[in-house]
Amino acid sequence: MEGGYPDPTPGPGEALIRVTLAGVCATDLEIARGYMGFKGVPGHEFVGVIEECADERLSGKRVVGEINIGCGRCEYCRHKVENHCPSRKVLGILGKDGAFAEYLTLPFRNLHPLPDSISDEAAVFAEPLAAAYEILEQVRVNEETRACVLGDGRLGLLVAQVLAAADCSLLVIGRHEENMSLLKARGIPYRTSPDGLSKQFDLVVDCTGNAGGLSTALDLVRPQGTVILKTTVAQRNGADLNRVVIDEITLLGSRCGPFQPALQALEENRIDVRPLVSKVFLMDEGLKAIEHASQKGVLKVLIRIR
Amino acid sequence: MEGGYPDPTPGPGEALIRVTLAGVCATDLEIARGYMGFKGVPGHEFVGVIEECADERLSGKRVVGEINIGCGRCEYCRHKVENHCPSRKVLGILGKDGAFAEYLTLPFRNLHPLPDSISDEAAVFAEPLAAAYEILEQVRVNEETRACVLGDGRLGLLVAQVLAAADCSLLVIGRHEENMSLLKARGIPYRTSPDGLSKQFDLVVDCTGNAGGLSTALDLVRPQGTVILKTTVAQRNGADLNRVVIDEITLLGSRCGPFQPALQALEENRIDVRPLVSKVFLMDEGLKAIEHASQKGVLKVLIRIR
Repeated sequence: MEGGYPDPTPGPGEALIRVTLAGVCATDLEIARGYMGFKGVPGHEFVGVIEECADERLSGKRVVGEINIGCGRCEYCRHKVENHCPSRKVLGILGKDGAFAEYLTLPFRNLHPLPDSISDEAAVFAEPLAAAYEILEQVRVNEETRACVLGDGRLGLLVAQVLAAADCSLLVIGRHEENMSLLKARGIPYRTSPDGLSKQFDLVVDCTGNAGGLSTALDLVRPQGTVILKTTVAQRNGADLNRVVIDEITLLGSRCGPFQPALQALEENRIDVRPLVSKVFLMDEGLKAIEHASQKGVLKVLIRIR
Repeated sequence: MEGGYPDPTPGPGEALIRVTLAGVCATDLEIARGYMGFKGVPGHEFVGVIEECADERLSGKRVVGEINIGCGRCEYCRHKVENHCPSRKVLGILGKDGAFAEYLTLPFRNLHPLPDSISDEAAVFAEPLAAAYEILEQVRVNEETRACVLGDGRLGLLVAQVLAAADCSLLVIGRHEENMSLLKARGIPYRTSPDGLSKQFDLVVDCTGNAGGLSTALDLVRPQGTVILKTTVAQRNGADLNRVVIDEITLLGSRCGPFQPALQALEENRIDVRPLVSKVFLMDEGLKAIEHASQKGVLKVLIRIR
């Protein structure tokens, strides 16, 4: 994206990937505002083609990639929890140039070759969809679960579809009637207000990305229920954590997730990502793309790199 | 405690209990400051003798009692989670006169007869000790668990003993060298500062009861670890809940717990509560007792009712 910025050189065990399509995430917007103090190339949602790679099976393949790069030696890496390696790099977020560029590099082990049946426009959702699937790694959800998703943005609509596919009883609470047509089409109930729903849900997932989300979630969850925090927030309004104590609520942070179920769901068309694309920009309009993605109610903005 | 305040009359299914000894808890101090807007007789930690009771097996018995009184009809009561009944009364806290009085009433089902081997001075700890045991109902703890208890007050020292008895690797961080002699005597390691321990613990239990406890706990817990909030706090300093998201931490509220393991531990002398008694007041010194319990570093204050 930046003229004259050198293309990355793959290190040992890494592949060089030509990026074809990238997605803009809320984290990118926060990074643009200074979050994490990251100075490199942002972007961590991408589809690309492997150009250089020691592993011949991968060379020339269309891929998506996991974004956490662990040290490979610590306790977390040894237990295959690379996502939490304390000295990890994170593509486009922490110590590693990202996907808003012609080329990026990632270790082979981070890459997932794509079947032809998944288009670039769908595959670019693999990373945020994997993050949505992380919830099912963390909590048990079944047809008896009364779940609520707060927020009808990019992530909220993915989480809603993942939970709906897990057969729970689901309600989405959002602010943008127009964003909810996707839910309507899939028969997922939604409302624009949480009024009258106090303590009604076993599980509330806060995907609002705003300061008041946690307070609303704590109002909606039942005693001994679970609130999942799915987004970092620059500032949170003082939520009353005494409710967590008195009602023995579980508050659970949730970040990156498993690519395998996400890719399988995309391949089997169980999750519909196409209506989530608000607009596609070309690479030389990168800044415009980020500005557009910052607007309220805008869903996924993509950047076509090549 | 209040002159002329009428003795309570047992309702259907209730016993009349003559209180012999009561304990002062942090919640009582908060109630004295207006917490919960409770206007009745405070006090919820007690030992007493049943004076009137329809169930002859209980009449005349020395008892302790569980403090939550559910409606008996709701979803929570039907699933034996009376502690979370939305219309519950709570002895000395919510809608039910408590133990800082000559008499109290409680439903039969709330009462636990005491074996002779448990003295009044030990039995009065049954309720807070049960609250400490609640942790073992909520999380799995074993010899591989690196646990940290924040706070060396009344509750912290009980929680520490419960966790130590569960064979985990335990460190207590407190502020009062003199309170920690109990821990020293039991071979439980303690420190007065959390410095240098960032992200070292699988489980951190915040028993500080102060505004900064959660922030310290979030600093000490490892990625994907668990923080238990064991006390309500009038105000919490803005803890960075983004760490909960990024490190996928589980934040778990914990309140009342099971009496049975608490009484068994007292009977088998596995938990030593005697050194926790700071001072015993007589009933007509009730206000003095509460004032004394409010002082920093003071452990359990008891009120001898009769």
